[in-house]
Amino acid sequence: MTYCVGIRLNAGLVFLSDSRTNAGLDAISTFRKMMVYEKAGDRCMVLLSAGNLSISQSVREILQVEKIPAPDGGEPITIWNARSMFDATRVLGAAVRRVYETDGPALRAAGIDFNCSMIFGGQIGDEGMRLFLVYSAGNFIEATRETCFFQVGESKYGKPILDRVLTPSTPLDEAAKCALVSMDSTLKSNLSVGLPLDLLVYRNGDLKAERIVCIDEKNPYFKMIHDTWGQRLREVFEGIEHPEWSGDGATAEFPLMVESERYETMRKITHPGEKIV
Amino acid sequence: MTYCVGIRLNAGLVFLSDSRTNAGLDAISTFRKMMVYEKAGDRCMVLLSAGNLSISQSVREILQVEKIPAPDGGEPITIWNARSMFDATRVLGAAVRRVYETDGPALRAAGIDFNCSMIFGGQIGDEGMRLFLVYSAGNFIEATRETCFFQVGESKYGKPILDRVLTPSTPLDEAAKCALVSMDSTLKSNLSVGLPLDLLVYRNGDLKAERIVCIDEKNPYFKMIHDTWGQRLREVFEGIEHPEWSGDGATAEFPLMVESERYETMRKITHPGEKIV
Repeated sequence: MTYCVGIRLNAGLVFLSDSRTNAGLDAISTFRKMMVYEKAGDRCMVLLSAGNLSISQSVREILQVEKIPAPDGGEPITIWNARSMFDATRVLGAAVRRVYETDGPALRAAGIDFNCSMIFGGQIGDEGMRLFLVYSAGNFIEATRETCFFQVGESKYGKPILDRVLTPSTPLDEAAKCALVSMDSTLKSNLSVGLPLDLLVYRNGDLKAERIVCIDEKNPYFKMIHDTWGQRLREVFEGIEHPEWSGDGATAEFPLMVESERYETMRKITHPGEKIV
Repeated sequence: MTYCVGIRLNAGLVFLSDSRTNAGLDAISTFRKMMVYEKAGDRCMVLLSAGNLSISQSVREILQVEKIPAPDGGEPITIWNARSMFDATRVLGAAVRRVYETDGPALRAAGIDFNCSMIFGGQIGDEGMRLFLVYSAGNFIEATRETCFFQVGESKYGKPILDRVLTPSTPLDEAAKCALVSMDSTLKSNLSVGLPLDLLVYRNGDLKAERIVCIDEKNPYFKMIHDTWGQRLREVFEGIEHPEWSGDGATAEFPLMVESERYETMRKITHPGEKIV
């Protein structure tokens, strides 16, 4: 499978992807899922992809040369001349649709879904940074202040920590750490997500990608996160008081056995068919 | 949706279920998903169910009177006379198959999956406690020392903490707390899982269920868990050092920008088609 996360903050953008692919449990491989499209000083765009690898690789290739008509009838729009990330993302949507035209019918005939979802974000010229989630139909949504991150692939194991930590004002390094913790939880619970990771942190206004690192199992920082997070989580867990079942419950600071005002305590079924409270 | 978890420890069993059901996002209801079948001093069995509510309610009803043939041609086996939890679970499997016979064809004709998964555990007489996961075909697997818990429904958000904390030697109260933390993470990330919760803690050898509580939004213990866990998680997160991007990286105790020996740092694509390292 795959796990990728893209985050848009006031201070910049964070992208993190794993690199495991599988065609069945007995066909596990390593493929990078991050791609950087850059014209230093002019634009920097990052693409993370999940889904069918043949589709996403084709999309990535085609994206470099895809064109959409300009509304004023002028020069067609590419990712290299687009004047906004919105337009660049429309080009990406067109690339997805081009692969669908080419491969969709044969995939459908083979009983395979046209499955592809992508996170695309970056900055062009003076425009603010933008972050998009692109679906397999080529349509897309954009991150906002209320929802400042997108995930694709195996997103659930790693979502709680993102939900708890991230806001638009989160500093870049803290968000990068948060993405790595989120990835660590995902790696622990789903074997089909795996190292190495690609991490890219983009600072608002840079218009080039300088902070990129490939993280394998020997990376000191990721090892520290992996070891520390699990251990601290256990410590916090142990620091929370156990539930108090004692009959009266009056001794516990936070009693558990409190009758609900709205719901009865569950009834048992005893012997055939007879119910008691 | 639903989230239920059942845990088998040396000290006993823990069961926790939410109570939200939905037939589409605009049809949210509250239904309890835990059922206790008890003959005090002889047997105590607990059933948690996920999936199509009409199926699981029918199974629960039929389970009280379902019979399977005894291998010696004697009196048919019911959950009330079964001499092992294995046999009782076979009766549950038969109840699932009976509902499938009755409702399966009409559901299929309506394009609805026969979707039902259940956790069933307890203790009968002198036998050790046992815990089973029953699938919609009526087949089942049993928890072991290596895998001491089962989840049904929306399991992913809440799995990391179970993976990190639970072993067969975990004390009962700690496991109950762990289940509640797991539920709290799930409630936070999936609106289709909701209060009230039913929590049941069974001590090895009791042969009756004494510790049952219905937890609503006012329960002091669950409120404490909810408030404390989120806050402490943030504190732990903040206590972990941020990644160090400085050029040389020599100053950081756990440097991030370390070159992988196995994988290159990602290449960028610059201008149409040209690739640089």
